[in-house]
Amino acid sequence: QRNANVTIAGASNSGGESSKESSRSSTPVLDTDRTDRLRDKMRRRTESGDHWFSLEFFPPRTASGAVNLISRFDRMGSGGPLFIDVTWHPAGDPGSDKETSSMMIASTAVNYCGLESVLHLTCCNQTKEKITGYLSKAKRLGLKNIMALRGDPIGTDWEEEEGGFNYATDLVKHIRCEFDDYFDICVAGYPTGHPEAQSYDEDLKHLKEKVDAGADFIITQLFFRADTFLKFVRDCRAIGITCPILPGIFPIQGYQSLRQLVKLSKLEVPEEIMRVIEPIKENDAAIRNYGIEHAVGMCRMLLESGEVPGLHFYTLNREVATMEVLRQLGLWIEDPRRPLPWAVSAHPKRKVEDVRPIFWASRPKSYIYRTQDWDDFPNGRWGNSSSPAFGELNDYYLFYLKSKSSKDALLKMWGEELTSEKSVYEVFTSYIMAEPNQAGHKVMCLPWNDEPLAPETNLLKDELAKVNRRGVLTINSQPSINGKPSSDSIVGWGPPGGYVFQKAYLEFFTSSENVTALLQVLKKYEPRVNYHIVNVQGQNTTNAHDMQPNAVTWGIFPGREIVQPTVVDPVSFMYWKDEAFALWIEQWAKLYEDESPSRMIIKYIHDNYFLVNLVDNDFPLDNCLWQVIDDMFELLDVNPLEQPVEQAAEQFIQEQSAN
Amino acid sequence: QRNANVTIAGASNSGGESSKESSRSSTPVLDTDRTDRLRDKMRRRTESGDHWFSLEFFPPRTASGAVNLISRFDRMGSGGPLFIDVTWHPAGDPGSDKETSSMMIASTAVNYCGLESVLHLTCCNQTKEKITGYLSKAKRLGLKNIMALRGDPIGTDWEEEEGGFNYATDLVKHIRCEFDDYFDICVAGYPTGHPEAQSYDEDLKHLKEKVDAGADFIITQLFFRADTFLKFVRDCRAIGITCPILPGIFPIQGYQSLRQLVKLSKLEVPEEIMRVIEPIKENDAAIRNYGIEHAVGMCRMLLESGEVPGLHFYTLNREVATMEVLRQLGLWIEDPRRPLPWAVSAHPKRKVEDVRPIFWASRPKSYIYRTQDWDDFPNGRWGNSSSPAFGELNDYYLFYLKSKSSKDALLKMWGEELTSEKSVYEVFTSYIMAEPNQAGHKVMCLPWNDEPLAPETNLLKDELAKVNRRGVLTINSQPSINGKPSSDSIVGWGPPGGYVFQKAYLEFFTSSENVTALLQVLKKYEPRVNYHIVNVQGQNTTNAHDMQPNAVTWGIFPGREIVQPTVVDPVSFMYWKDEAFALWIEQWAKLYEDESPSRMIIKYIHDNYFLVNLVDNDFPLDNCLWQVIDDMFELLDVNPLEQPVEQAAEQFIQEQSAN
Repeated sequence: QRNANVTIAGASNSGGESSKESSRSSTPVLDTDRTDRLRDKMRRRTESGDHWFSLEFFPPRTASGAVNLISRFDRMGSGGPLFIDVTWHPAGDPGSDKETSSMMIASTAVNYCGLESVLHLTCCNQTKEKITGYLSKAKRLGLKNIMALRGDPIGTDWEEEEGGFNYATDLVKHIRCEFDDYFDICVAGYPTGHPEAQSYDEDLKHLKEKVDAGADFIITQLFFRADTFLKFVRDCRAIGITCPILPGIFPIQGYQSLRQLVKLSKLEVPEEIMRVIEPIKENDAAIRNYGIEHAVGMCRMLLESGEVPGLHFYTLNREVATMEVLRQLGLWIEDPRRPLPWAVSAHPKRKVEDVRPIFWASRPKSYIYRTQDWDDFPNGRWGNSSSPAFGELNDYYLFYLKSKSSKDALLKMWGEELTSEKSVYEVFTSYIMAEPNQAGHKVMCLPWNDEPLAPETNLLKDELAKVNRRGVLTINSQPSINGKPSSDSIVGWGPPGGYVFQKAYLEFFTSSENVTALLQVLKKYEPRVNYHIVNVQGQNTTNAHDMQPNAVTWGIFPGREIVQPTVVDPVSFMYWKDEAFALWIEQWAKLYEDESPSRMIIKYIHDNYFLVNLVDNDFPLDNCLWQVIDDMFELLDVNPLEQPVEQAAEQFIQEQSAN
Repeated sequence: QRNANVTIAGASNSGGESSKESSRSSTPVLDTDRTDRLRDKMRRRTESGDHWFSLEFFPPRTASGAVNLISRFDRMGSGGPLFIDVTWHPAGDPGSDKETSSMMIASTAVNYCGLESVLHLTCCNQTKEKITGYLSKAKRLGLKNIMALRGDPIGTDWEEEEGGFNYATDLVKHIRCEFDDYFDICVAGYPTGHPEAQSYDEDLKHLKEKVDAGADFIITQLFFRADTFLKFVRDCRAIGITCPILPGIFPIQGYQSLRQLVKLSKLEVPEEIMRVIEPIKENDAAIRNYGIEHAVGMCRMLLESGEVPGLHFYTLNREVATMEVLRQLGLWIEDPRRPLPWAVSAHPKRKVEDVRPIFWASRPKSYIYRTQDWDDFPNGRWGNSSSPAFGELNDYYLFYLKSKSSKDALLKMWGEELTSEKSVYEVFTSYIMAEPNQAGHKVMCLPWNDEPLAPETNLLKDELAKVNRRGVLTINSQPSINGKPSSDSIVGWGPPGGYVFQKAYLEFFTSSENVTALLQVLKKYEPRVNYHIVNVQGQNTTNAHDMQPNAVTWGIFPGREIVQPTVVDPVSFMYWKDEAFALWIEQWAKLYEDESPSRMIIKYIHDNYFLVNLVDNDFPLDNCLWQVIDDMFELLDVNPLEQPVEQAAEQFIQEQSAN
């Protein structure tokens, strides 16, 4: 759905389960009192008989692995998991601020991907102070759920420590003692008993202790037969464990990974599985297909048993097998309905957020990052909260990391060598047209747009290409919409039975000569068109009334107040321009050597071009912004630098008026 | 324009000058810091060369005189005065809470009529404590401007009092000393010198002292020749008085009133005027016509002199002459443009108010009264401020006073004797049809609607009459509107270039039998129609989501956020129902003797009927609310009490669905 340059009602829904709840309150309440807890969502879904799924990931080893995993969160989030969980890697500095730490990955999932997330935490060999520190940090970052584990002892001679963390139960108790009921707590269950337990019954007792200490639900270790799990559930119920028990599903994805896992978990692979796998162990595809078929069959039995409200998947950070199992089970639902036109963050503090400036439409993670210190979120009225400053760019690691393409790939797309501003115009045009550039490479992204243009939604392609070719370098736009149903598959959002609206929007870089002509032309379009024009030094001109925001996306719904989730706000535009101009240098100019002509061309644009935004307020009429640009070109054409452009403009406007 | 029962986008603009400023901020600021002062408005109008006028009134003697004067404020406010002023009657307990006091009349003009107002205050024979008390009270009531006068001494042997209030200058100094710059201060000027002054020049010096002490502008005593005023202005300027000087215009309205005024003010009527008037002194109409002609001629000379930015009229609480003079001068401008669909209150605290529940649409003064203690006004979002309680009804004098008709006239309209509920239905129907009732009397108002139905805007008349005849007693309604220009003469409001929208609304009393059928019918209309149904005991049923408000009037404007000035709010509906039910008893039942059949019929309706509101959320489609009512009647017709209505309804709905 998503179209990075031509934003049609904003980003696709990567908000996961939380975004699916179409019963969005139009008078939102702060969730710091934890009103919308994972355990409540689980209970509601269970009561409604609506099966769900959840996904487990582990932290990546490298920064680029982190970037890839975040993209995977967005993709897998679109299928609607109830939650995801991130494992705790004691050896990987799991509580640190490194982009690859368990803490940071879980925080990114919550804050930037809008996913309800569970952070694993192991307590073995840790001090209480250290654990409390981790939990405080998690809370501060917006994490609300903990999977409490003992973890594997370091070294072999582990001994119980008086008053220390010897079992997961101790950790559950500690969390409840230090943080009361703030966190939802999950604990691990072992369908065949913990490998170190004295007996299966003994292990069940330990599980009961963990639940009694305050755990809200159980996720089991993987298993290979539905019966194994169902017996385990019966045994749990028999000793009085009443909380939800989620089966851990492991779709077999390869021979080596299966062997390794079995070794680690000390599980035995049943003979009937080994019999199938052994003969095809060199054929990865065949094993994966078998794994999918096996998982689907087992999941069907589990769901049909009536004992299983939801399925938990060990993804091993891979997408294909799990998605295929979920699709076959009918649980993977890419619901095009969105509560708001942009993906909602899952941080409890941001629950009230229901309006954002349009400028970050293609860089929502940057917006979330730069507003993470806000205490209040604009709520219905933008004006009240325009004062809090946007965070600085320089410490934003996603800003630098975010390009998934290598320097080499970027050079191929954006030009190994630039010869003039025109070569830049051609890069933009190739991107818009989704056609190869002169060197024969497709331009899949631009610094301001991380995704390739989605052709099926690119309604404005021809107009965009035409103006980009002439140096109107578009980086964001949306068409006008006059009351389409909220259920519309492309532009719809919000609860059913409503209507959505948009004012046409266009944002671009262009030369100062063009801007001089544009300003003359815009006089003809008062008060229909609002504009804001700024250069890198911050010199700016606008006809925004009192620097007030202009609502450009809004919705009318049955029994609700008006929702206006996107505004063109002159104050935040001045913050955005820093980011938009910086991207020229950080992402493009720095591909070339210092002092090289290519770098100088990008630097020239950065130093001399203006960033322009235009809003056509007359949403029921045809978008006039293309006419504005046409008029600007016409004015420039009739005046090939023979007279000052202002004089030419006067003449031009008089002629236009006379017609 | 105004249509009391069929509210088409709400009340007409009685907001006076303040309502005319279409540059309404969509992020309003509290005006307690006095940002939008009368002196600033005056300066802006003067700078723009845009002439204005203002109107002087005196407090009435009786409570019914107060009700009439308030209606006159509304009517004369619609012509757009920059301000009105209310004289101070020391003998009439002017600072008290009586409905006829100067203080209360001025407060009503500000708070309920939305008029920028100046309260006169005389200081002669008053203690400083007393004066400070008056000023504090005025400030608390939202008054922002004072006309500082000495006043006439009580008794004949007046002597200067050391340190007391001897001159208006002392009062000006006292106001500035005690209240800093809070109030805008006006003082009186005497074009022919104060009658008690030693000389004209001496009097000019006193005026200069008043201005130097802190007065912001001057209003002059009446005069009969333009030259008199223009010379006075020149003399003022010559001694360094630079503030605005407004000429006090007195249109001669009758022989006796002229003689009396001349005697009081010790002015001489010029011979050329006496020559015209004496021969026609018995002919009031002829004198008034002459007075209008004379005032228009003098005003034209004043305005053409370039010395006069605005005209101040001594109305003597009469409308015709002043309005005619203003019309002939082209200053009376009934601008249909309104900043919001309801009249904005001029209380500084209410500047931020931009959303109200629809229920009080025909009783805006009651709404203002009942919310006068609110600290916060709903601003963009209703939800934030739904908690403050609405004030009690019982101490609201306007509530009881408000009917301008005598008991006798009301009995003629609403029935000397009621024989059944049907007779009540006929009263409603006669009101809707603007036709005489069976006794031959026109029904000009109902307890919920103070004004007669304006036929030219009564687009829903036939539908309304049809349902009222059958006992669906409508008290409020609005049609749906799908994007009409904000400049539309009937439904438009807000700044130019915008679009306004409405959801269809219908509110009525009806019997519990009808409600039973209605609830069955409404199942067919989920989620298109929102309803809220309540009886006098407060038993209520609604399909409002989480008791959230439903926006039913909103506007989209160039360069602005969305404005949603009218909501159907389930919480405030429960306050409104107390008032709506009480009006049956207070205004109607009490017309009849205790225990009389007529009173018992109204009491029966009060005790047994339900108050219903319906919203059709599908504003782009044809209003379905009439169909809902038709379906209800159809269901009742097919089921003449032979089976429980619920059963009949089941059948009915099944049949409907089958079609």
